[in-house]
Amino acid sequence: MDIEQFRKAGYAAIDAICDYYQTLSERPVKAQVQPGYLLDKLPKEAPAKGEPFNQIAAAFQNDVLPGITHWQSPQFFAYFPANSTFEGMIADLYAASVSNPGFNWICSPACTELEQVVVDWVAKMLGLAPSFWTSSGVGGGVIMGSASEAALTAAMAARERALRRIAGIEHAAENGDIQVPEEIRRKNGQKLVIYGSTQTHSLGSKAAIMLGLPFRAIPVSAEDSYSLRGDAVKQAIDADVAAGLVPFLVIATVGTTSSGAVDRIAEIGEVLKAYPTVFLHVDAAWAGVAYALPQYREMLRLTELNEYVDSFCTNLHKWGLTTFDCTLLYVRDRRDLTQTFDVTPAFLRSKEADAGAVIDYRNWQIALGRRFRSLKIWFVLRSFGVEGFQQHLERGISQCTLLADIVGRSKNFEIVTKPSLALLVFRLSPSSRADLTGDILDVLNQRLHDRLNARYDVFLTQTVLHSVERNIFCIRFAMGGVHTTFDDVQATWSIVEAEGEEVLKRWDGDRLIE
Amino acid sequence: MDIEQFRKAGYAAIDAICDYYQTLSERPVKAQVQPGYLLDKLPKEAPAKGEPFNQIAAAFQNDVLPGITHWQSPQFFAYFPANSTFEGMIADLYAASVSNPGFNWICSPACTELEQVVVDWVAKMLGLAPSFWTSSGVGGGVIMGSASEAALTAAMAARERALRRIAGIEHAAENGDIQVPEEIRRKNGQKLVIYGSTQTHSLGSKAAIMLGLPFRAIPVSAEDSYSLRGDAVKQAIDADVAAGLVPFLVIATVGTTSSGAVDRIAEIGEVLKAYPTVFLHVDAAWAGVAYALPQYREMLRLTELNEYVDSFCTNLHKWGLTTFDCTLLYVRDRRDLTQTFDVTPAFLRSKEADAGAVIDYRNWQIALGRRFRSLKIWFVLRSFGVEGFQQHLERGISQCTLLADIVGRSKNFEIVTKPSLALLVFRLSPSSRADLTGDILDVLNQRLHDRLNARYDVFLTQTVLHSVERNIFCIRFAMGGVHTTFDDVQATWSIVEAEGEEVLKRWDGDRLIE
Repeated sequence: MDIEQFRKAGYAAIDAICDYYQTLSERPVKAQVQPGYLLDKLPKEAPAKGEPFNQIAAAFQNDVLPGITHWQSPQFFAYFPANSTFEGMIADLYAASVSNPGFNWICSPACTELEQVVVDWVAKMLGLAPSFWTSSGVGGGVIMGSASEAALTAAMAARERALRRIAGIEHAAENGDIQVPEEIRRKNGQKLVIYGSTQTHSLGSKAAIMLGLPFRAIPVSAEDSYSLRGDAVKQAIDADVAAGLVPFLVIATVGTTSSGAVDRIAEIGEVLKAYPTVFLHVDAAWAGVAYALPQYREMLRLTELNEYVDSFCTNLHKWGLTTFDCTLLYVRDRRDLTQTFDVTPAFLRSKEADAGAVIDYRNWQIALGRRFRSLKIWFVLRSFGVEGFQQHLERGISQCTLLADIVGRSKNFEIVTKPSLALLVFRLSPSSRADLTGDILDVLNQRLHDRLNARYDVFLTQTVLHSVERNIFCIRFAMGGVHTTFDDVQATWSIVEAEGEEVLKRWDGDRLIE
Repeated sequence: MDIEQFRKAGYAAIDAICDYYQTLSERPVKAQVQPGYLLDKLPKEAPAKGEPFNQIAAAFQNDVLPGITHWQSPQFFAYFPANSTFEGMIADLYAASVSNPGFNWICSPACTELEQVVVDWVAKMLGLAPSFWTSSGVGGGVIMGSASEAALTAAMAARERALRRIAGIEHAAENGDIQVPEEIRRKNGQKLVIYGSTQTHSLGSKAAIMLGLPFRAIPVSAEDSYSLRGDAVKQAIDADVAAGLVPFLVIATVGTTSSGAVDRIAEIGEVLKAYPTVFLHVDAAWAGVAYALPQYREMLRLTELNEYVDSFCTNLHKWGLTTFDCTLLYVRDRRDLTQTFDVTPAFLRSKEADAGAVIDYRNWQIALGRRFRSLKIWFVLRSFGVEGFQQHLERGISQCTLLADIVGRSKNFEIVTKPSLALLVFRLSPSSRADLTGDILDVLNQRLHDRLNARYDVFLTQTVLHSVERNIFCIRFAMGGVHTTFDDVQATWSIVEAEGEEVLKRWDGDRLIE
């Protein structure tokens, strides 16, 4: 494809995307295809000769789009939103045009420096303490691909910091020159333990699995709104210490996936003062962007975050208007990263890094190569402004408040946990039917979810809320889409209500009949 | 930005990218900016109110582009190429328009299924054995972000397989149900060792650091063209076994970064038959795409790869026409991945996965979320065809052959290692100056590289070739750019020749004078 062919194909792609967004609300949110639909349709080998591009673009429309679940649909309420914006798309297009692997400053100075600028813009917008700003020269932020990657990165940094502290050599030398003595690692490496709660996202247990270490899922109480408490953390840590193990990481959550719970950061932080090997990471993948709204900072424990936390993660690609992927990881001390991830062979040396004049982000992360993701943050924040960003968040929250009002007044449903920002967790639980036990309600709600799941015009996800009191099967309604209006919320809710009626009709007092 | 504003801004972006490519060969390849240029220029906080988009797009041109090192320039010969194509850019644009985190099949069935299709297209194009095809149902391929990520993934899978083998439970149960007993992990987890050579990319030592395990950089010989040999591997492994350690991973390389060396896969594979805990990963990040050329398969040891290797990685985003990022990791047994990475909480369950009907790629990788990268492979292979892909590779190789001829005949330079595909490693070494020792040549070449590095119109990277015989400071000339012609190669070579003359002039027989 030459330049003029690209111009034509590029315009056509832009037009096709405009058409897509114009018709998005008419398309069922879920792909209406069966497993194997595309495997069966496409040839088993790449073509020997090239094809005209208009044929390829047509195949995207005809073969691919029918198999897309429309996360940008105004009626997408599953999981959490994955906001994509036109600003983000255009930024990614510009970034691809100057494609480079960005692993050090000279790879493309603009990529490194724009990242330094925008992670600080976001830090200030969220109210993070200056110690987390890159301009502090001590802490700083880095863009990653996912909250899982951020949690694994934090876990690796935490492990090395713990071992250095045991060895008494933390931050004793310049970046990259600190080696944990082999005998310290041999003795302690396999005794390390990670902590979270039963509500922690699977990224916690996955990080543990990937490091070959145990993860303690500490129980929470429904009475505490599913928040992890300090005393529970202390109990778990003490038990491990007594058994000769070495606690090294607590993953606390601000806005859990299941119900939006906020862990008690200050309580946990106070407990951890007695355990200097433990690093405190806060996963706020979804809710973290809401720190941009001053009126929610107290509820989301911002002051506690700023005081106690070693690292903090939020995803701009969820509710933050920035096209996937765009995770931010902030650390209070960048040496926790650089002293873990810095390896510099001859072919990666540069005069600017040797002179200490620049940041080489490859030393802040797992991979060497990295895309130019700062550009989309820059485009989004400049185009929306902080006020536009805040209005977007407020729109999702107010939709949730309105929906909560409707669900609260409905005869067949109840709200299970206090609405959290733009997330509502509910279940079928008719107020007039005291005969329906918790076990029965779980069966009914499972059936309700199955019925919703069989439809293509609605997409909600289930969860099981675990607590010391009981486990509850619930359904989540996650608002916050860029194009979602309250009419969309209501349209989906009507379907839920109708399906709920159908489920209740089928309960004969003993079992569900078909 | 509404739909019509997007149409306008999208067209403008396409036009701007056309202008960029039209003027690319006139721009110096390296960014002409000093550290801090953009930090000083941009405001310290995001704007409160949104700005008009044309102002933002103009800022990309005025503030960002001057700080871009032009990896797509026809005169980019540093590191390895990072091919970006118009097809890849348009695919990424379409992908962003249907943005979704793709972590399971129902997230967007097309994303999962297109990935299954295209990884097999590539596997067949490269001549990988059917056991690596996804359609085999046993092995398969998965798209990742970087070769570092692929190596770390392989290392984690290798560690778990080794521990399962020690426990005698390998593949005894269905996916995800195998737990390594705690005492096996406690006893062996910190005794594990990774092997590579002194030529292995830093991804090897970085994977080891990230897992908190040692990496043995086994020496190689210049006489063996810097290839890792089986007997050297055996010696290193035996020493560790004798010390009570547990070898679990060898990372062999096809096409090293420093000189394009190809490790002796069959020799290593034969050695490893005696060590069932060891997993063999081949990193062919750069050279792997060249398996698409049948005439190079023997030199690149394809038959050996197909017979002995557990996993194999190549980057389509280097020399494979596919816009960054696009790494392929192939495994011979997908259970090595799924039995390591599968964690499935309630909110990630789906009826299709529960039924075993689909692949959930999140269980093949570190992160949960993933972008729709298969689309760009599909666009590229359909637009170029296998023949077009091959012609692109052949163009880079033939440029290298022509350059090697020129360098070979030059009076001041020598080729250090046999040209490898599109990579030439050379140094200043005047044939008439037998008085210049190896140490002096290193000083002269270091100065030559410094002089080249101070210019903006040329970009070549240095390396130090380590071997049992001696260490040599060299300069690398990596061809393979999408838009590079032999005139571009020659233009850069003339600069190298002229700078070489200058360096030699300044050698007074004892030291370099200014």
